[in-house]
Formats: sequence, C-alpha cells, structure tokens
Amino acid sequence: MSSSYGKNIRITIFGQSHSESIGVCVEGLPPGQRIDMEEFMRFLARRAPGQNSYSTSRREADRPEFLSGLVDGVTCGAPLTAVIRNTDTRSSDYDELIDIPRPSHADYAAQMKYRGAQDVRGGGHFSGRLTAPLCIAGGICIQLLEAQGIEIGAHIASIGGVFDAPFDTVSVSAADFKAVMQNSFPVLSPASGEEMLELIEKAKREGDSVGGVIECAVIGLPAGLGDPMFDGMENRISSIVFGIPAVKGIEYGNGFACAALRGSENNDPFYIDGKTIKTKTNNHGGILGGITTGMPLIFRVAIKPTPSIAIEQDSVSISKIENRKLKIKGRHDPCIVPRAVPCVEAAAAIAVMDALLDYKMYQGGN
Amino acid sequence: MSSSYGKNIRITIFGQSHSESIGVCVEGLPPGQRIDMEEFMRFLARRAPGQNSYSTSRREADRPEFLSGLVDGVTCGAPLTAVIRNTDTRSSDYDELIDIPRPSHADYAAQMKYRGAQDVRGGGHFSGRLTAPLCIAGGICIQLLEAQGIEIGAHIASIGGVFDAPFDTVSVSAADFKAVMQNSFPVLSPASGEEMLELIEKAKREGDSVGGVIECAVIGLPAGLGDPMFDGMENRISSIVFGIPAVKGIEYGNGFACAALRGSENNDPFYIDGKTIKTKTNNHGGILGGITTGMPLIFRVAIKPTPSIAIEQDSVSISKIENRKLKIKGRHDPCIVPRAVPCVEAAAAIAVMDALLDYKMYQGGN
Amino acid sequence: MSSSYGKNIRITIFGQSHSESIGVCVEGLPPGQRIDMEEFMRFLARRAPGQNSYSTSRREADRPEFLSGLVDGVTCGAPLTAVIRNTDTRSSDYDELIDIPRPSHADYAAQMKYRGAQDVRGGGHFSGRLTAPLCIAGGICIQLLEAQGIEIGAHIASIGGVFDAPFDTVSVSAADFKAVMQNSFPVLSPASGEEMLELIEKAKREGDSVGGVIECAVIGLPAGLGDPMFDGMENRISSIVFGIPAVKGIEYGNGFACAALRGSENNDPFYIDGKTIKTKTNNHGGILGGITTGMPLIFRVAIKPTPSIAIEQDSVSISKIENRKLKIKGRHDPCIVPRAVPCVEAAAAIAVMDALLDYKMYQGGN
Amino acid sequence: MSSSYGKNIRITIFGQSHSESIGVCVEGLPPGQRIDMEEFMRFLARRAPGQNSYSTSRREADRPEFLSGLVDGVTCGAPLTAVIRNTDTRSSDYDELIDIPRPSHADYAAQMKYRGAQDVRGGGHFSGRLTAPLCIAGGICIQLLEAQGIEIGAHIASIGGVFDAPFDTVSVSAADFKAVMQNSFPVLSPASGEEMLELIEKAKREGDSVGGVIECAVIGLPAGLGDPMFDGMENRISSIVFGIPAVKGIEYGNGFACAALRGSENNDPFYIDGKTIKTKTNNHGGILGGITTGMPLIFRVAIKPTPSIAIEQDSVSISKIENRKLKIKGRHDPCIVPRAVPCVEAAAAIAVMDALLDYKMYQGGN
Repeated sequence: MSSSYGKNIRITIFGQSHSESIGVCVEGLPPGQRIDMEEFMRFLARRAPGQNSYSTSRREADRPEFLSGLVDGVTCGAPLTAVIRNTDTRSSDYDELIDIPRPSHADYAAQMKYRGAQDVRGGGHFSGRLTAPLCIAGGICIQLLEAQGIEIGAHIASIGGVFDAPFDTVSVSAADFKAVMQNSFPVLSPASGEEMLELIEKAKREGDSVGGVIECAVIGLPAGLGDPMFDGMENRISSIVFGIPAVKGIEYGNGFACAALRGSENNDPFYIDGKTIKTKTNNHGGILGGITTGMPLIFRVAIKPTPSIAIEQDSVSISKIENRKLKIKGRHDPCIVPRAVPCVEAAAAIAVMDALLDYKMYQGGN
Repeated sequence: MSSSYGKNIRITIFGQSHSESIGVCVEGLPPGQRIDMEEFMRFLARRAPGQNSYSTSRREADRPEFLSGLVDGVTCGAPLTAVIRNTDTRSSDYDELIDIPRPSHADYAAQMKYRGAQDVRGGGHFSGRLTAPLCIAGGICIQLLEAQGIEIGAHIASIGGVFDAPFDTVSVSAADFKAVMQNSFPVLSPASGEEMLELIEKAKREGDSVGGVIECAVIGLPAGLGDPMFDGMENRISSIVFGIPAVKGIEYGNGFACAALRGSENNDPFYIDGKTIKTKTNNHGGILGGITTGMPLIFRVAIKPTPSIAIEQDSVSISKIENRKLKIKGRHDPCIVPRAVPCVEAAAAIAVMDALLDYKMYQGGN
Repeated sequence: MSSSYGKNIRITIFGQSHSESIGVCVEGLPPGQRIDMEEFMRFLARRAPGQNSYSTSRREADRPEFLSGLVDGVTCGAPLTAVIRNTDTRSSDYDELIDIPRPSHADYAAQMKYRGAQDVRGGGHFSGRLTAPLCIAGGICIQLLEAQGIEIGAHIASIGGVFDAPFDTVSVSAADFKAVMQNSFPVLSPASGEEMLELIEKAKREGDSVGGVIECAVIGLPAGLGDPMFDGMENRISSIVFGIPAVKGIEYGNGFACAALRGSENNDPFYIDGKTIKTKTNNHGGILGGITTGMPLIFRVAIKPTPSIAIEQDSVSISKIENRKLKIKGRHDPCIVPRAVPCVEAAAAIAVMDALLDYKMYQGGN
Repeated sequence: MSSSYGKNIRITIFGQSHSESIGVCVEGLPPGQRIDMEEFMRFLARRAPGQNSYSTSRREADRPEFLSGLVDGVTCGAPLTAVIRNTDTRSSDYDELIDIPRPSHADYAAQMKYRGAQDVRGGGHFSGRLTAPLCIAGGICIQLLEAQGIEIGAHIASIGGVFDAPFDTVSVSAADFKAVMQNSFPVLSPASGEEMLELIEKAKREGDSVGGVIECAVIGLPAGLGDPMFDGMENRISSIVFGIPAVKGIEYGNGFACAALRGSENNDPFYIDGKTIKTKTNNHGGILGGITTGMPLIFRVAIKPTPSIAIEQDSVSISKIENRKLKIKGRHDPCIVPRAVPCVEAAAAIAVMDALLDYKMYQGGN
C-alpha cells in the first residue's frame, strides 16, 4: 500500500511491467462528462515509447481498453477502469537481475520489502511503464478541467546543463502550452531543444543517460483551492508527483531560490489589475498557505538520469553477499525526461481535480 | 480539510494563533510506551520563541497540557491529545489586516477561500505557531523511534548565501546530530553559524528577513519501509513537510543536482560492507522506488524568508479593489529557519513512524 | 485506531472517562456558520446524566469549552475543537477491575488488545461518557442541516417488552420530533413512556438493567445522497452508529421484517403526489442502492442492557486464570436507552452532513 | 465514491452489469502467499448463477482473469486486479426502464443522483452481479485467514417464515461450516432447506420473490482485533456488508433480541476453560467495545426479497411525472439469499483481514 491517490477523485493504479495488463481505476468522476477520445489518445501518445531516438524501442499499441465507467464515451458515475495489455514483453532480459540488483533501481529495496516475492520482470510494479495508467487518469482529468477553463502545461526546463527558456510565471498562457506541443521536443525554445537532443544522443552513444528538470504551470485556477496544513496544494501535488519514478525533488514558485533571498525581494506585492487582485511577481507560485491565489500555479520537478545504463556497474549478489559486476541488457530510454512531461501534467491534473471538488463542496454556501 | 495526516499514526492539528488553545490529537500510538517528559520538553524548547535575537519576542510558557491518552506518562492506546493555551496574544496588532492582505502571507488566499469567515488574528490557523502541536506529535514519535534504533537529526544547510558543512550522506551518525545540538545555533560548523547569525541580525536591523535551507537525515532505518507509487517515503514525507508554513521545496538525496548528472555519475553502486549491503555513494538519499534501502534517508527543504517584514510594502484593499501601502507591525522572526529545524525533524518522525507501522504489519509473515 | 469518522466532515474523539478532559475535533465544517449556543446546550442537556431516576448520579457541568474553530460563535473554517473537563471522577470505584473484567464490558477485550496499558478507570476510552463529544459534533451538524431544511428526530421504540408507537414511515414530520421532545421521556406515546419508566425503576430496584430499541428518522433529504457499494447511506450511518457503546444491531426501513416478506409485499410502489415522485409505502427506509430517495430515512438500533449491574456476577482473574465472583460498585444507569436517543441523532447528523457535502460537490455540474 | 473499502487491505470494485468487464483491485495483500486456485474457484462457484431453480438463468463463465498482482499463483505485493468479462448480456431487456423506475431498485435514486448519466443496463453499477468481484477479493482473504487458523462460515438462518437451526454461538466449529457446504442448499438442517426451497419455488411460480436472513460466524480469532469507536469490528463489518445489495439490517451476537433482556440475562459471564478465558454464553457475539474477545464472532444480516418480480407493479414516468404500470421482464432470482451466503462470508473475510493487519502492527511490541 498504496497505489491509490486522492479523496474525491480516487485513482488506483495496478499492474506490473510484464503482468497480463496494467491499468487504473478512477472513482469519483462527475457523471455525464463526454471524453474526447481523439484528444485523449493524442495526450497518451506524448508519453508513448518507441517514437524517437531518445526512448526505448519497446513498441506497444498501448491503446487503453475501457472496462467500465463509460457508456458511449460519457462518464456514468461508476468507477472508470481502463487497462493496457502487456504484449511486447521480453522477460528473459531480466532473468539475471533477481539476485543482482541494478544500482539506483528499486530492485534491492523491493527485495528487502517483499522478501523475494516481488515481480522482478521489467521492474514489476516499479516500472516506468506504470505511468501509462497515470496518464490515462490524468488525461481524463485534463479534459474535465479544460471544460472549466483550467489548463495545464509543462515543458523541459533543463536536461544536463542545457536550459530551456522558463515560463513567465506571471503571464504564462495557453499559447505557451501550445508552443511547447508544436515542437517535436517539449521545450519553449527550439534551439535549446536541439542542444538537449544532442546531449541525449551523446549519452546514448556512450551507453549512458542524462537527467533533467520539468516545469509545470496550471492556469485559470480560481483563488481558494487547497486547504491548510496537510492538504495544501503543495502537499497534494507532491504526494502524487513523487509517484512518478525518478522524481527526486519538487519546488513551487521560485522554490529553492527563495532560500537566498530577503523577504523584501521574495514577497510578491499585490496590485489591482482592472477589477482583479494580482501579484506583480509570482515567487509564491500561485500558492499561499497551501491555497491558490489565482496567479499561475508553478512547480518544477527534478528527474534523475535513467538508472539503466549499458556501462558496466558495481553491484552485489544478494544471496551470496558478494560483490559482482553487472551489465544491464535490454532496451531503455537514455533520457526519460521528455516522456515524463505528460506524466507531470497528468499528476497535476489529478491533484487539481481532486482539490477542485473539495472547493465546490463549499461554494454553494453552507 | 485537512489538518490531519497519517494512516496508522494519525495526527490532527487544531487551533488558531489567537484561539483559546492550539493542540494536536494523535491516534494510533502503540500502547505502553513511556514518554520521557524532560527529553520531550527539551525538544519542544528548540522550537520555542523568545529565546534569542532571531526570533519573535512573543513569550509563552508553551507547556503542553495532556488532556488524554497518557496515564502516568505512559501511552494507553487511546488518542493522545495535548493543548497549549494561547495567553500572550495581542489581537489589536492585526486589526488592519482584515482587508489589506500581507504580501506572501495566507491572508488573501484565506479570504478567497473562507469568504471573510476565517480567523484573521495572528494568521489564524495558518500561523507558524501551529508548528508547536506538530512538534508535540513529532517529539513523541522521535522517542518511539529512538527506542527502536532510529534517529533523526537536522541542521541549517544554508541561510541567505551562507552554507553550513553538509551531512556526509553515507556516514552521517548520531554524533553529528549531537554536534548540531551542542551549538547554540543548529549548524555543524560553528563558524558558518556565526556568519548566518550576522546575516540575520543585519536583515533584522534593516526591517527585512532571510530564508534558508534545512537538511534532515534519518538513520537506523531498516530497508523495506515505504510503498510503491503514492505511499513512497518521498510522498509521505513531502505531504507532511509542506504542512510547515514557508516550505517551498523538498529534495531527496542529491535532489535537483541529479538533473545535471549522467546515470554513470548519479547511480550508487552496491557493495558488501562486512555482511551488509550498502551503496558507495548515496545520491538516492536512502530511498529507491519509494522504499528505504537502509542507507541514511536524506532530504532538504527550502524555507522562504519570513513574509512579515517592517519595510513598507504594496498591497490592496480587498473590499475597495484599490491599491494600498502596508506597514506590518507586531513581533516577527527575521528568520524562521532555526526554529523550523525541529519542525522538520518532527514531521520526518511522524512520517517515518507511520511507515514503520505499515512495515511491521507484514513482518510477522503472512 | 480509529476514533475518527468521516471524509468531508471528519470528527476525532479523544479522552478517557477519567482523563483530564474528553473532547472532539471536527474538521471540514463550512465557514461562516453561526452556532446557536442555547439550542446547542439544550441538545447536549438531553444526553446529560444526573437528571432523573434512570441515569447515573454522576454530576458534571459538562459545559463544553471551545478551544478552536469558532470566532464569536461563528465557524471560521479551521478545525473546531471542544473539550469537557472531567471533574467528578471517583477512580477508586474501579480499582478492583484491573484484573477482574466486568461481564459484557470492554475490560477483557481491552486488556487483550493493549496488554494492560489501557486506562481502566471508568472504562477509559470505552466509557459511555465519550458519547458527549459525539453529541458536541452532532449538535453542530444538526444546526447546519436544519438551516438547509433537513431535520432529524429519534424516539425510544421499545424498552424491555414495552413498545412506543412507531414513526409513520411515510409521513413522519418535524411535528412528531417536537412531540417527542415535549415529553419528559423521549417517546411518542406518553402512556408507553410511563410503562417504560416503571420497567426501568423495577430493574433498578432489583440491581438490574434493561435494553431497548431507538428509532430515528431524517426528513427533508434531497434524493441522491449517498453512494453505491461501501459509501451508501446504510454503510455510512452504520459505521458511525456502532461507535455508540452498547449498540448491537441496526436496520433500515422495515429491516429484519423484510426477511419474512415477499417482493410483492415489500416493494414500495412509486406514485405521483402533485409534482413529486414518492413511494406509497416506505419499507426501503428512504434508501435504495445506498442512495436517498427523498422519502424519510428511517433506521432503528438495538441497545443492550447496561452491563454494569449491582447483582453479583461470575468473572475471572486474568492474571491468576481463576474463576472469581464480581460485585460492581459505582453509579450506573439502569437503562442507557433514553440518554442514547440524542447520541443516535448526533451520529445520524454527522453521517448525513458528510454525505451532503459529497452530494454538493457534483451539483454545480461538471 | 466510494466503491472502495479498507485501510490495510483495500478493495476497489468496478464495473456495471453490462459494461465490458466487472472486477476488483485489491491492495495490501501480504506478498508471497500462494492462492489455491481450485479452492478459490469452488468458493466463487457457490455464488455463481444458473445452477438451480432459485437463481437467474443468466449463464456466464465467470472465470476471473488475473491482470496483475499474482506471479505463478503467488501474491507479489503489487495490487492484485481480477476481472470477469460480461458476455451474456441482453441489454434490450432493460430499454423501457430508463424512464420508469423499478420499485425498490436503485433506478430512481440513481437517476436523481447521476441525472440520467448512469448506466441503466441491468442495474449498472448497482447490479447484484457486482458481488462477484467482492467474492474474488473475499475468496483470497478467506485463504489467507485460513492459513492463520481463522475460519468463516455462513448459512441461511431463515427464508420467509422458515428457520434453519442456528449456529451454537459458543461452540460453532469448522465442522458446522463443512456440514452447511455439503448440503446442496446452504443450511444446517436439510429438512429446513427442503422447506425453504418449496417456499422459493412457490414464489417463483407466482411471479414473486422472498427474503431471508443469513447468519455468519468467524472462529479462531485472537482476542484483541478491532478498535474503539468507529473502527470496531461491528463498524468495520457493517460498512462492507451493506455494500451487498438488498441487505437491510445487521445484528451482532443476540442483536435486536438484547433489547428485551435484562442485564443479568444478557451479560456473558467469564469462566476459565483449561487455561483459556471464555464466556459461558455469547450474547455479545465475540465483540466487546468493538474488539474481539476470542469467542466466535457472530452476526446476522437481513436480505430483502428480490425487488424484480414478474407481477405487474405501480411506478411512474420520471420524465412525464405520470403514474405508470410496470411489468419487469428478464431473468431474475426469486430469492437471492442462497447466493448471498458466500458474499457475506467474503465481506466478513475482507473486514477481518483488514483488522488483523492492524492488530499485527502492534504485536511486535512498540
């Protein structure tokens, strides 16, 4: 426990990399909502593998099958379950790994926790493949949010030492999100994207991998979402985002940079813009006291380099308590950051949708 | 909702800065555990205000009163509730703030959420004062963990641009925690501490404030704590730590630094140390796949500069939709980082204790 | 775990019979709601002991002190905590009971669970006294529901073999609830009440006790509250009502009587009444598929006779594994059914309020 | 929300009567547990339709397909998901019912809640068919409990006015459970079973249906399971059992009968049996203060007569607000009590397994 998240919208993700299927059950979706399947499939395609040089060559149809919760493409109020069959699995690639854990993978921790009963094939329940069901749930929430004027976009902020142009935290707009999507690589600046791709190619050629940072923005949020203390927007988003494998850090607004600032520099002054109260800067990332202010909600997540590399590494035999050398075979992304971009959007959408329902509960008065 | 956290150990924090009392209810404490009250009060004292130049001069006894759950200092299995009376409150200091929100405080967001019904006095439920009940719950959990060989320590990693020596992530020990506590200022290097204090003093003199970073380590953890996906140790710790006001970011292991590394640099090779499996480096911060590896669990949190500053700021009148100038009166810490150190330890202790109980559930087999 | 209940409205009850205080923390109350303190105190008074021949002579002011969550009698959105000091405790009455469990009390089960660490004084956390905080939380919810046209009333359906007139399940109204309250004994038929009182007096004289059944109705509910499967109104109400000590059964609508009926007798035909869809009979108790139908929600609970009786009973010494005789001293209600009436109303109010907030979440569309 | 139940073992049930599939996701199963598939299929067969005169002639393979969580028949610690394809669906049978709700079915309540978006085919998510996934989850828990010496059995206590011999609440044993299973009809007394079958046949011939009561016992439980207040065994079991459609009441031990007794009659005296503490009678049904005493846990549930009857009934047109006559077509059980017996066992197993894990958490000390 627990592969579940949420209170009003509750998602439960199941499956292992090489089990019969992977999937997700989503409870609490408002009834009567039509899902635009084309848009939905376009969203899933952004995460799909096998499209380009930087992702694993594992190819799967990855077309989700809806088992329940939809009638003629419309939510019916019952739990929605969708599954993806695992078809292109090469279990033999992993046979050696039962006893010799891959550095910086979950193998060793899982072995300690499940005492050998865990499904080791392809990383089992810890596989990055499990972000596909996260994107299914998130892709649906994204559509529900859009219908209410709330939009979510993310881009690669950096890979290795190469940086994209950041979102303008005060004025980021749907046009920026569109610009990112029109690039074949999810960045604002195509030139930076080219440089990042070169970095990835180079790492791949050398049997290595690279990490990066993803920046995400949520716009169109009303002020008042989120709750004090442990159900603040930061808590809610963090507790789903760390469910994406390889995420090692999260920061809101200017994040860690605030530590080097003075209050007079970091504080965001309020001002009147027409009839609206806004802040001149947005170091707070659209969240104060855990609650949205109506300014764009901004956060960034750190993604570690893919731990699966072709270079030989030091490991151990768990059973023999002996040092060992390990050379990982199989197909792996030299950089998972690009494919993680829609996963971060999906996670944010689910967290925001859940908070939005809490918000609605009290809006009718009493 | 929700000022509650946890599944096995469940804490519920209540109170406003100027309400009758603030307090915490802790459910799920194992019965029959004696609380060492002296050690407990020493822990709380580390967070208490009024001790030195860098904290508010608001003085309160802050001695918790145990209303339930303890019989002669021993947990009895029933929910433990402790309260602290609010005695030294000067509500008039805040009268002006109902309509003119303080920049980077929760005032405006709360106004939008609660439509004016929120308790504005002293920040209400959003006050940093609410970390006192967090420390009560955490102080108890710290003792329960110590009895099982698990220790938690934190120090100030940086304030403004001044950095303390970091924990050695591979070999950090209880001796390091003791060293931090023996300093009047919670750092490893007294020289850095001096420099930080100067920075704080300077900010104070100028009516300003400064932010910082806290680094926390948990040692003595068995491998196998935490769960995949949304109940991983990163998720669990994040979702309580962001309950501490002013936290804007969290990172585990080498955190955001991993984004600039290659897999071959970031991966932590396993090796045999005597009969134990360890990693040579600890970039993973003791967590892989959400599960502890037995290496020290390491995380850092970014704390923004106190938003309450004496310098005049730009704000607005919410009711009149007009720009306004604001000059905050009252007593405020020019830097809350030192007092946040035990709060971070408390939060970590609660999250770890909760995960430990999940872990124990399955250790008896079947 | 767990002395908490609810998802949107979350109550956490703490305290032991002889601890410093007992109390409740209520999260999720809508902000800006004024509590009518006089009405609230009148509600609590219905549960208070020491008023008459059938209740314990333990006398306590039992005036709750609000520690948080209210500002000038209005909810502020922060968790509301109220406590009652335990003043009139006679702990010596219970000294013998540590080792010799009282038949049909929680003593033995608690001893097995907490291995001797439980608070044995006065039944500890298992005491009927803990229904006072339940009534605090419920008394507030009752007022919030009334403001929305939802009313709750209960009466004693039977004590021993004496039966009150039942609610008319199709047309029960606020007038019926008023009628019950105007009687000094909470029944519809004063004559039945007289008979019940005689039965109680007789049991008391003989050092014995009697049980009974309470019937509760909720009117003014919109159709559509509650959820399929495990969050149906029956599940929600049951899981709070069994938190009242001594409840041994619950049934909805015609309940156990349905087992002897045919479908053609038990089914409730729909018909049009003006512009409203109603059912001619209400065997379903206002709930179908876990969801309210708009007909009165009806349920009954069985309350066992007070286990504390003056008559000598057979028990054992837990430590010596020997048979023993036990004669319980102290003050006890010969019948707890009358005082349990407002507790059942309180429990129903909390469950309904929690479901109502779920209902509101989806009513704004999308 | 919510089709989920449980804290340590968490089940999420999805699917509609005529959706692609129905199924269940079970989180928190201990890893490394082998499921005996033959025994498991025998358990599911007890609930399956189409076997005899009293159940619907709808025939389905109902063989669950395991999508995740099992590796070679052994739990791997990841969420276990199993689905059953819906193959034999005749949706046209239900076309008329969109506007004309069936009396005492969920149709009308669902229409009010989901405003027409609900899946009306076959009762949608409210169909009795959804007890199949409940039995999948329960069938697994039953095996896990058996491995620890805990056994669960149920029988039909009554149908219409015909009563089976009750369980001996003090000495009920696995032999009794076996006796019930060896009968083709799940009763202790074959003669009563014959009489019940006749009653069912007669109702069927007359286009009608009958209700009944199921009695369930759990034996081999340690003392100390369950928690005070809202997580007592009564609360836990009730909140899952009311998830079985048609359940209208539940009682523990002697249940509603206690209301007519005196304390001296109802109390269960303790005594020493060898080295064990037992009670001479078991009116408390193995639960005191919400916690198991080690005596058999006994409860009974009331099941209403199948609301689908062939006899013409009064209903309404929801859209036209007009009275209507309704004649239900399709295949329906004249009595669902026999098929509900394993469902009640399944529900009990899940609730007990969940409580057992809480119990284990604290048994290692500290």
